[in-house]
Amino acid sequence: MFYLIGLGIGPGALSVRALETLKKCDKIYLEAYTSIPQTGIKELGALTGREIQQLQRNVVEETDLLLRDAKEKAIAFMVPGDPLVATTHSSLLVAARRNKVPCQVIHSSSIYSVIAECGLQMYKFGKTTTVPFPQENYSPTSPYGAIAANQKAGLHTLILLDIQVGPDSQRYMTIPEAIKILVEMEKEKGKNLFSPKTRLVGLAHMGEKDQLIRYAALPVLAKTDFGQPPHCLVYPAELHFQEKELLETY
Amino acid sequence: MFYLIGLGIGPGALSVRALETLKKCDKIYLEAYTSIPQTGIKELGALTGREIQQLQRNVVEETDLLLRDAKEKAIAFMVPGDPLVATTHSSLLVAARRNKVPCQVIHSSSIYSVIAECGLQMYKFGKTTTVPFPQENYSPTSPYGAIAANQKAGLHTLILLDIQVGPDSQRYMTIPEAIKILVEMEKEKGKNLFSPKTRLVGLAHMGEKDQLIRYAALPVLAKTDFGQPPHCLVYPAELHFQEKELLETY
Repeated sequence: MFYLIGLGIGPGALSVRALETLKKCDKIYLEAYTSIPQTGIKELGALTGREIQQLQRNVVEETDLLLRDAKEKAIAFMVPGDPLVATTHSSLLVAARRNKVPCQVIHSSSIYSVIAECGLQMYKFGKTTTVPFPQENYSPTSPYGAIAANQKAGLHTLILLDIQVGPDSQRYMTIPEAIKILVEMEKEKGKNLFSPKTRLVGLAHMGEKDQLIRYAALPVLAKTDFGQPPHCLVYPAELHFQEKELLETY
Repeated sequence: MFYLIGLGIGPGALSVRALETLKKCDKIYLEAYTSIPQTGIKELGALTGREIQQLQRNVVEETDLLLRDAKEKAIAFMVPGDPLVATTHSSLLVAARRNKVPCQVIHSSSIYSVIAECGLQMYKFGKTTTVPFPQENYSPTSPYGAIAANQKAGLHTLILLDIQVGPDSQRYMTIPEAIKILVEMEKEKGKNLFSPKTRLVGLAHMGEKDQLIRYAALPVLAKTDFGQPPHCLVYPAELHFQEKELLETY
């Protein structure tokens, strides 16, 4: 059996069912190249009482190996958040289903629904976008377009921030960095989506005891130390009074 | 302390952190009027070793009582799914934050990210809609409008199905019932969103061992017995080949 298991958002966010399953597995792998798990390998080891192997390389290179093993053994593959939210992991599920390897997905919390804690209503979110780190000769403005389209339709936008995880280095975009990049897009596109009066929601290390949610104008957010990653932003559409009520407590 | 705790999608979906917290709480309430928890009160009692009180009435009527208690004791309020996805529960968080009652939200899996298991990419979902049970002199076509707008923007639509939970009765809309209602909307609106060739994704009792995902044309879905609730649908936008790859295994 191949288990694709979500670690959820924050420490201890994996489910009771996930924990029970992990204790019975023959091999446990932790995906650590598309994100940095908020629950570390040591804590996971202590929790499950099992040895956990961290995978650093791209999962696609490991798929055959993992699935061959899963035909006869119970193999767990752990992923931060809810496992299929990162598109890269659906290839594992495709390969398992095609090769008739029995497979179960064990879900957990995801930033997609965790953001509802700020007060914005889930059903009013439109397309999600990601702000990438600028690269030489490549500064896509697709996040600006996504926000503009959502605004026009009266929908909130979840703005994820880029992550670069290499074997020896980790780089997470912070909220102040993202604001700087978005303001640059404003200069190019000029639809007045980002002005000093624009109020966004900044969310940092959700699910941790000291998680931070701030609803404030851009210049304030740009100066706020949100602390440890991961960070994300929400660009709110026109607010319902009930949304405003909770949002303004942050 | 007031703990707002998600039960997640499927049995055993609550998080390890939630379970540890529940064991230390002075009082535990289970919300059972906006949804039917997939983990029953008996299983939750066995899991936590604690007595659990089921709340049948509207939470708003109980807010003062709950929060007064939470000023001095550890009070847990459990909700199916991720707790703030249902808009009714944000009023609890507002009241807690306004009255300076310390409060923690413990998240869990939500249908909003669980649907990614069908293969559709999360970031390509637009506004979510709900198909309500028809009432005399009231047949809203807002779901049709939401799907049309998302299609135009190339976005998938999560279609939630109505739930009516009373003190003595429970009623969940099934996928065949929802298709009948959506086809009625087609007759009125006529934008050719629903034809016998239209293929939707039907998802039923996700997170359970016998969860069911079917990607098929309307007439097939309308005749499928999806079994126990809850059910939901996804109206896919134009598919990326990677999405198609997983979707077509169902």
